[in-house]
Order: sequence, then C-alpha cells, then structure tokens
Amino acid sequence: MKSIILYSGGLDSTTALYKYKKEIALAVSFNYGSKHNVKEIEHASKNCSILGIKHQIVNLDLNTLGFVSDLLKSGGEIPKGHHEDLSMKKTVVPFRNGIMLSIAAGIAESINCNRIIISNHAGDHAIYPDCREAFIKGMNEAIKTGTYNEIEIFAPFTNISKRDIALIGKELGIDYTLSYSCYEGEDIHCGECGTCTERKEALEGFDETKYKK
Amino acid sequence: MKSIILYSGGLDSTTALYKYKKEIALAVSFNYGSKHNVKEIEHASKNCSILGIKHQIVNLDLNTLGFVSDLLKSGGEIPKGHHEDLSMKKTVVPFRNGIMLSIAAGIAESINCNRIIISNHAGDHAIYPDCREAFIKGMNEAIKTGTYNEIEIFAPFTNISKRDIALIGKELGIDYTLSYSCYEGEDIHCGECGTCTERKEALEGFDETKYKK
Repeated sequence: MKSIILYSGGLDSTTALYKYKKEIALAVSFNYGSKHNVKEIEHASKNCSILGIKHQIVNLDLNTLGFVSDLLKSGGEIPKGHHEDLSMKKTVVPFRNGIMLSIAAGIAESINCNRIIISNHAGDHAIYPDCREAFIKGMNEAIKTGTYNEIEIFAPFTNISKRDIALIGKELGIDYTLSYSCYEGEDIHCGECGTCTERKEALEGFDETKYKK
Repeated sequence: MKSIILYSGGLDSTTALYKYKKEIALAVSFNYGSKHNVKEIEHASKNCSILGIKHQIVNLDLNTLGFVSDLLKSGGEIPKGHHEDLSMKKTVVPFRNGIMLSIAAGIAESINCNRIIISNHAGDHAIYPDCREAFIKGMNEAIKTGTYNEIEIFAPFTNISKRDIALIGKELGIDYTLSYSCYEGEDIHCGECGTCTERKEALEGFDETKYKK
C-alpha cells in the first residue's frame, strides 16, 4: 500500500499519521479558509517534518465560493458547547470531506498511490453527514471506480470514539501538544468550543504536559 | 427541483443548460488549468447570459497541485485522433468529475439546491473512468448521504451518445457556434483532437453555420 493521508493537524489525523507513517507517501492539508486553518497547518507541518513525511498544502478558499459555515472566516461566531450539540451544526462546512477526498484522489492517481487515509470518527456522526459510514462507502465506490489505480479509502476510525483514538495515540507515545484542534484559531486552545470540549474529554487522565496548551 | 449545473461550455453541457434551464439556479464552470479553459468559459458565460442564468467560476489550478494530464497547461502535446482511442488516456484529468461534483455539492448545500446536473455521456466511458455509471452511482450515494439537503446527481446523458445529445440540441434549436470543445484552446476548433473529432461526428449533416468555426 502506498497512501496519501488527509492531514488537518488535529488529534485524530495526527494519530493516524503516526500509526500509518510507514505507508504514507504524502500528507495533504487543506487551507480552505477556516478561522483555525493557519494554526492547524503549522502543527501539521511540524509533525510531517518530525516523521520525514512529504507535506502538501492545497489552497482552496471556500469563502470566495459562497460556502456558508461559521467555521469559515466569512461565518458568524464559533458556538461554545459540546461537539455533538445541534448548535454545532453551524460549524459544518458543506461536503468538506467529499471535496478533500476528491482532490486527494486526483493527486493520488497522479503520483501512483492506491489508498487515501481519512480520520473521521464515530463522535462526528451526530452533526457531520460527511463523516458517516454511508458517505464513506459511497465515496469509496466513486473513487475506486473513478480512477485507473482503483484507489480505496481507508477510514480506520469511522466506528470508534475520539477517546479510543487518543488511547491509540497514548500507546504510540504521541506528544499531542504538537496537534491543534481549536476552532478559534488562537495560540492557546480556547477550551470551550465544540472541538476543545471533545479534545478534553478524549484526553482526560492523560499527563497534561503531553497535550495541554 | 432547484439545480446547479456543471457547465463547461462544450456541446454536452450546453445542451443540458438549454434543456433544463427552468430548474437551474446556478451554472458552475471550473477554471482548473487546462489549455482550453479560458476559451470554454467565455462560451459558457455567453450562453448563461443569453438564458439569464447566474454563472459562477471556480478557480482551482490543478497544475500547481501536481496533477498529471496532457489536457493541463503543465502537460505534453494534445494527441490527435479519435476520442475513444487509448492514446487519449493522456488527456484524462484524474478524478476531475469527482472534484467538480464535490465542490458543486458544497455550493448547492450553501444556497439550498437539491440537485446537480452533470453531462457525462456514453462515449466518455472508454477512457474516462469518472464518467461511467458506477462512478456516478457512488458519487450520488456520497453526496446524498453527505449533505443535509440530500442532494442528488442528475446525469441524464450517461447512457446516450454525443450524437443523441446533439439531436436533442437540434430539436431545441441550439446554436452550437456558441459552444466550444477543442482541447487546443485556440479561437477556431482544430478539427483533429479527440473532442473535435467527436464533435464533428455528432454534428454530421447539421447546418454548418449552426456549429462550425
């Protein structure tokens, strides 16, 4: 297997990056115009550099294309609360995973890879339709039949929780201070947005020097 | 139904634009870095203007992302010959339809549309994997399950030929001089590239003043 990984720089995809590092030919990050993109990508670059994995940044500003989401710079304030609350629906970026998987499929075909790793997980299912199993199944079928390399999607965390992902990372000895999740995009995690709340729950009981900042 | 159409400015999608004009809220053209994009999009804009359909251009330069295809500015010479020849494989832009459908799905969700029209046809199947029925079926499943609007793909020409599409256009009275297909991207169709060959076959016996230039 020669894989491309969709790599945001957050907890989930950082875990996948370390776990599957041997088969990863390229990590792709998307600068799509969210409030926290720049900060995320800084962290993504750092981890790729540590592991010696080639890192490509795709610039596609969804603000200029009329996308509606509070996660984007053109959107409203980031809501506080739990990741699975319905109020978090405003942070959904329409069909983001579909867009990233499709562009990654084209890159994978161009550099002769045959797998794309994506780190969606069970906690995403409540509000993100493009993280659910049915979506992954459809995209997999589309990409497999729509490429000469018959590229497949590998979504190892689809049915496990963020806590379970963190436990995998702990076993691998990942330093999560080198990952970044906060939707606000400031230097220090705000601790109150949906993704910060989820991150804290996932890392409960961990050595704080290994993830907090 | 409130639809977005993927609109290149070529014969197939121009036919779909005229045929389904009443339900089209937005036509989306992609400036993805091919040799003929600029010329295509000029024609697309003209037809949208005639029909009073809003036209959005998405700039995503695949040359800068490392995509490999002779259709792109970074690629080699455009091969001459028949559209279905294996030599034409070099003009395949990896997973192009997947990328365009995915971005259109995000736009459709943002402006509350529930259908995306794409004009792939049976003649494309030989060399373009992302024009075949299995690909469309997978993408449809992914987009339907991956959006709140349960957006569907409408691909009315999947199993008919370009000739059949041209006959539909003739019945509608479409002036095909206002469409553009040539892969070379010059003012006058070269008449020898894959898409010109196919276009000539499709329009055989038509009044030449209605399509030739």
